[in-house]
Amino acid sequence: MTAPARLSLNQATIKYANLADALRLTVAAGIEAIGVWREPVAEVGLAEATRMVADSGLRVSSLCRGGFFTRPEGAERRAAIDENRRAIEETAALAAAGAPGSAAVLVLVAGGLPEGSTDLVGARGRVGDALAELEPEARAAGVTLAIEALHPMYAADRAVVSTLGQALDLAEPFPAESVGVIVDTFHIWWDPQVLEQIARAGAAGRIASYQVCDFLTPIPADALLGRGMMGDGHIDFASLTAAVEATGYAGDIEVEIFNADIWAADPEEVVARTVRAFERSIPLRSVPV
Amino acid sequence: MTAPARLSLNQATIKYANLADALRLTVAAGIEAIGVWREPVAEVGLAEATRMVADSGLRVSSLCRGGFFTRPEGAERRAAIDENRRAIEETAALAAAGAPGSAAVLVLVAGGLPEGSTDLVGARGRVGDALAELEPEARAAGVTLAIEALHPMYAADRAVVSTLGQALDLAEPFPAESVGVIVDTFHIWWDPQVLEQIARAGAAGRIASYQVCDFLTPIPADALLGRGMMGDGHIDFASLTAAVEATGYAGDIEVEIFNADIWAADPEEVVARTVRAFERSIPLRSVPV
Repeated sequence: MTAPARLSLNQATIKYANLADALRLTVAAGIEAIGVWREPVAEVGLAEATRMVADSGLRVSSLCRGGFFTRPEGAERRAAIDENRRAIEETAALAAAGAPGSAAVLVLVAGGLPEGSTDLVGARGRVGDALAELEPEARAAGVTLAIEALHPMYAADRAVVSTLGQALDLAEPFPAESVGVIVDTFHIWWDPQVLEQIARAGAAGRIASYQVCDFLTPIPADALLGRGMMGDGHIDFASLTAAVEATGYAGDIEVEIFNADIWAADPEEVVARTVRAFERSIPLRSVPV
Repeated sequence: MTAPARLSLNQATIKYANLADALRLTVAAGIEAIGVWREPVAEVGLAEATRMVADSGLRVSSLCRGGFFTRPEGAERRAAIDENRRAIEETAALAAAGAPGSAAVLVLVAGGLPEGSTDLVGARGRVGDALAELEPEARAAGVTLAIEALHPMYAADRAVVSTLGQALDLAEPFPAESVGVIVDTFHIWWDPQVLEQIARAGAAGRIASYQVCDFLTPIPADALLGRGMMGDGHIDFASLTAAVEATGYAGDIEVEIFNADIWAADPEEVVARTVRAFERSIPLRSVPV
């Protein structure tokens, strides 16, 4: 089977497949790249995971995920920073094991407000502090810390970074090689400034990954799971993809979908649907990486 | 009983009370102002509603709501525009019937994407077109059309106006007397630009109303109902209120809560809770209007 050359399957789309199955299904579908999650890597151990990735012949487009560093100084914050250090090492190892064109990109989800706190400005400041602490280690490892703005509906409990513009403001003090941003359609499609901020991200060389999935309504009872296959929701992928393409971004494009129905479906069928939806909804002009 | 002089009870907070009960409970609690909804006004008819409002001695702080004009040209759009014309007349009549200090403010919820459309830019453009069509009538009636930015989680199905900055951009072509904005904590608290946009709104004289309620997590199954009493959620009311106060805004402050538990409670008890929560969470420095 064949698939678009720049399509990468983010493992979360087939959440219940283990790493071996995810790699196998991705290869079988003719997809050339995969976005990996830390949990299935931990299940087999990093050494074995890197061997499996190398054997697959796939590119690694990112590792999900680090972050969750909005707590004030203390033991919990130290534990979070240490966890991010391990994630940086894993990102470097997995990207090195992947096929040429792999990207050593660690996706960062900032974390929400600390329990009981309403100090959003303070929490956002501590994201910047964590980046300053981790960036030298990322740079030394050749890893890009990729700040992901999450949809504002998650500002309280998951990510205090809510817009692409804010992510870029956080990235700005650091070299583009070591701190970039994720452009994820689900999280930013509604933003009146989205096209200018994509252009800004591209001009600064900070687009570490382009991730696509659709925004469904009604928002489900678990608000994290309102993502859909491209074309099933409300997002205009043509304009967003054109804006990303116009920056010269030529890397992999991940499909990352959190959706209970898709997770419950046969993963092989989900991968096939992913390929078809990508071909239909993501108009690319560039040559493959 | 007494209540803070600038507190206004938005009728939606006691959704199942009719107009007579809402007016009676508001007066009994010592609250001086009310934000009125069109549906309970329609139940008794506008003429009777204005008499009831005049008899109550309350100020009217706003009428909810107009808008829903994102559809392309055609019969449905014409019907929506006509509905807004009626809402402008009602706003003027109710404000005239209210006590001195009443505000002829019509709250506008833009409307979502038309069924099956992903053209967010087009829908937003049609909001501007509708304002241009309605503004002369509002001006002639002495009514302020107040654009309400809704939380981005409603961008697809309820309001394509998603930030205060975008609302101000839409308002800018028109005089501040006839087109303003609503500053609603629930919808804008997460915005990294919120403080500067509140200052911008104030400098332009466009704050038509300040509305407060809290943002609860988890987001309920009906995402419209995740509003809470001030202090029960994640919003820092001190910083937002200080920003609004710093602009010189000295009008009424509406408490508007959509919440199934609050709607199911005894409305008299809800009004009493509203007063206490307002006293505790909304720090005001100004003298009453």
